[in-house]
Amino acid sequence: MSHILGQQYIGGQRKAAGQVTLQSLDANTGEAYAVAFKEATADEVTAAAQAAAKAFVDYRETDPNTRADFLDAIADEIDDLGDDVIAEVQRESALPEARLKGERSRTSNQLRLFASVVRRGDFYGARIDRGDPQKQPPKPDIRQMKIALGPVAVFGASNFPFAFSVAGGDTASALAAGCPVVVKAHPGHMVTSECVANAIERAVEKTGMPKGVFNMIYGDRVGAQLVQEPAIKAVGFTGSQKGGRALFDLANTRPEPIPVFAEMSSINPVFMLSGALEQKGEEIAKGLAGSVAQGCGQFCTNPGLVIVERSTASGAFIEKLSAAIADQAPQTMLNAGIVENYGRGVERLKGLQGVEEVSVGQGGDNQAAARLFTADKHLLLSQKETGESPLLEEVFGPVTVVVEVDGADEMLAAARALNGQLTATVFSGDDSELRDRRELLAVLEQKVGRLLFNGYPTGVEVNDAMVHGGPYPATSDARGTSVGSLAIERYLRPLCYQNMPDAALPDAVKNANPLALLRLVDGAFSRDAL
Amino acid sequence: MSHILGQQYIGGQRKAAGQVTLQSLDANTGEAYAVAFKEATADEVTAAAQAAAKAFVDYRETDPNTRADFLDAIADEIDDLGDDVIAEVQRESALPEARLKGERSRTSNQLRLFASVVRRGDFYGARIDRGDPQKQPPKPDIRQMKIALGPVAVFGASNFPFAFSVAGGDTASALAAGCPVVVKAHPGHMVTSECVANAIERAVEKTGMPKGVFNMIYGDRVGAQLVQEPAIKAVGFTGSQKGGRALFDLANTRPEPIPVFAEMSSINPVFMLSGALEQKGEEIAKGLAGSVAQGCGQFCTNPGLVIVERSTASGAFIEKLSAAIADQAPQTMLNAGIVENYGRGVERLKGLQGVEEVSVGQGGDNQAAARLFTADKHLLLSQKETGESPLLEEVFGPVTVVVEVDGADEMLAAARALNGQLTATVFSGDDSELRDRRELLAVLEQKVGRLLFNGYPTGVEVNDAMVHGGPYPATSDARGTSVGSLAIERYLRPLCYQNMPDAALPDAVKNANPLALLRLVDGAFSRDAL
Repeated sequence: MSHILGQQYIGGQRKAAGQVTLQSLDANTGEAYAVAFKEATADEVTAAAQAAAKAFVDYRETDPNTRADFLDAIADEIDDLGDDVIAEVQRESALPEARLKGERSRTSNQLRLFASVVRRGDFYGARIDRGDPQKQPPKPDIRQMKIALGPVAVFGASNFPFAFSVAGGDTASALAAGCPVVVKAHPGHMVTSECVANAIERAVEKTGMPKGVFNMIYGDRVGAQLVQEPAIKAVGFTGSQKGGRALFDLANTRPEPIPVFAEMSSINPVFMLSGALEQKGEEIAKGLAGSVAQGCGQFCTNPGLVIVERSTASGAFIEKLSAAIADQAPQTMLNAGIVENYGRGVERLKGLQGVEEVSVGQGGDNQAAARLFTADKHLLLSQKETGESPLLEEVFGPVTVVVEVDGADEMLAAARALNGQLTATVFSGDDSELRDRRELLAVLEQKVGRLLFNGYPTGVEVNDAMVHGGPYPATSDARGTSVGSLAIERYLRPLCYQNMPDAALPDAVKNANPLALLRLVDGAFSRDAL
Repeated sequence: MSHILGQQYIGGQRKAAGQVTLQSLDANTGEAYAVAFKEATADEVTAAAQAAAKAFVDYRETDPNTRADFLDAIADEIDDLGDDVIAEVQRESALPEARLKGERSRTSNQLRLFASVVRRGDFYGARIDRGDPQKQPPKPDIRQMKIALGPVAVFGASNFPFAFSVAGGDTASALAAGCPVVVKAHPGHMVTSECVANAIERAVEKTGMPKGVFNMIYGDRVGAQLVQEPAIKAVGFTGSQKGGRALFDLANTRPEPIPVFAEMSSINPVFMLSGALEQKGEEIAKGLAGSVAQGCGQFCTNPGLVIVERSTASGAFIEKLSAAIADQAPQTMLNAGIVENYGRGVERLKGLQGVEEVSVGQGGDNQAAARLFTADKHLLLSQKETGESPLLEEVFGPVTVVVEVDGADEMLAAARALNGQLTATVFSGDDSELRDRRELLAVLEQKVGRLLFNGYPTGVEVNDAMVHGGPYPATSDARGTSVGSLAIERYLRPLCYQNMPDAALPDAVKNANPLALLRLVDGAFSRDAL
């Protein structure tokens, strides 16, 4: 595409001083594109962080409507990305056109959700405790609101080139919170990144936002420096456990540590109660196989472990699941590195004592086949510490492992053996079957960010109630979510004003309540002016 | 006192297997008490963490009224601690009787505030996005609420033996969140700790809470192990920067990192605009000197740096402040270590080029005198990086440093030179003087957790709106507060349920809304049943 420059976005300018050349690869052929990108130099990384800090001065003070209009403008630009851009993304990611068009809409809708959240204003968390100057000693007037943390470094994921990348959830929630961003473009889709960055820059121009509210740098080795830049005040990351933990460790050893919200690793266990398989085993087998293979298994919420209660129906279920996996068509993965990783993960499973490959889907040149394994329950149940089972290591790809356990107590023990997960799912025959399983549900609540019933974990709604997070190693901080409107809270902190004259207070906590916020006033919620 | 046992509190039992003996010291004489405490053994530390984990199973499921009744019961027991206990605390801390009686009430009121927060229920943060099974693909029903993180390790402070210790804000907010606690008793007030622990245990008994919801261990070296116990899921700490950072680093290098909310270090700068000194310089001088010397300067919010805009009134203000400091009576500090630290801090200031001691309050044997220093503005303004000035190192004690700057721009530069603080204060002549200082206020907002006007930072209200927190090094996580009801959020994380049958849902997100919560339903706040 003619507009590709391959340069860094720094404070609204395009710059490339670097010597190191990066090449974008065709995911289908492995061949390098004609377009060459420059890795950001150390000076450029610093300049990007400082451009964000400079923009923060004005951007943090933007009123909710201005900020929401900006998010809406980005959404419109994303929607306007044409079929030529979709074709580029297909070339870089090997993802199908229909999926990418859906993801484009998901991305713009996500931006619009955050625009609505900013306009709604509850993210301010406004709280007022009025004073009493007549009291002895005088009781001060205290007013609290949430404010933006500062510039946020965003590391996108390979598997969602739109929705978890340059203009994805981390960027949207940071911008909504009032934080400028510095995106490290994913090396797997640099052309896509440039197209999306251009869209954001057009929105910056159109809505008159401060230059430097959005910045982007290219390179494989620039991430560590970015996280250590003093101007960066928080990090959003989606990717591997190794990568996320490395950034987390770097951020925590800074002179001034900063929060890292890394979404990393999850095998998303599914618990099959006996009633479910008795009543609808065949239907579940088909649905589950589809969920395992969906997007070639390249989802954070891919169901990689299935705990089945042994019953008269469980054997038939595993046979049906095996047949359904064998029916899955081959798919091209995101890039050669991910294909290799998948191969290594499959080999590791094959090498485990007590693990057996029972089904392999259709394969093709350079394409991944879906796979089903069964594993001896002792691999899960005999571990002394939670999270130690070799079955808990994520294999990124279209594979799942079935473990049959005997009775409710073993199923409970299997749940206890888990480490932190994004999701867990329970299938039951009818709702009454859940009544005796309160203990199982209680254990799962403590392991996950999302607990599902009679459904598949792939497919993550973007709304106010969604949690896409969970205890370590699913994320580095279970108090955050990277999908849904609560994601904005990661980039905010509380501040209070004591005895501040009303005229000097921000709108969110002014007496007149000009933003018409629902506020906690003297212990009760109210939209009234004071 | 006859009931002192000097043993660990583990799961409702008293245990002491250790060999290492700890002695409580009289803060006035430095002499050891007759009572001897045992340092917890490694096994006892593990047992305390595991007792908390065991109690968590039931405690996390308690309904809001049960939990609130428990907090109220602790509050009643604290109020009932008699004059004999106050006498013991005086002996250990050298704090005056009236102050300790006030602090006792503050502590019980804090517990009652959290009881009211639990009953109010907004801490659940309930959010519901209803599904639509008819839609293609079907839209799932998603319901979000905040749940307890798990057992919390609490490290109390020396300077508030009631309010920031065994039953202080960290314990109250953790118990309110549904988290059992393991307190590491402060070595400076072990007898006090035992008395308060007994009060909590009586409340546990009376309200039938699970054994192990409260645990306490003694020892100087047990903290590092406690933070690394797998059962511990969060840490609350108040103390030195060195101690807080050490625990933060330990927690982050665990296989499963956990959040640490350490409140550590702050010099609480005060900015004197020229109008303030012209109109009420003498009054401010007296008030400020009182704030500096209050509690012998042993407060986190002690004002340790005063930035004065040079004017016709500034010289007279410094003279008045100097006289007021000289008038301050001597006070006994909390313990010999703190006296030594104060001495070292004063010597360090004296040794700085450009710093001058201009006033010393009355002294006495083993007692601390208040002190006033002036410092050359370049010590603050000439630093390349923020937070580098030697004037920013906290001296825990009744001392403050005045820096005269020339004009609004230098005052702004002084604000920019600050690192993270719990508070900053601005004194202005009248409100109109603030109008031209938006830039100063904006910089201070980014440096602090609480911004005060025409008042003194000592004295921290306990209510919904208070923030006692701030950017590093004031705390290790600016997103938390350790005073006020928002402190409960530190020990919660979001969880969502997808397509969960109503009967199996927790009350907070059930259709009928049995807790009568204000919930975010399909994007709008409502108390309605669904």
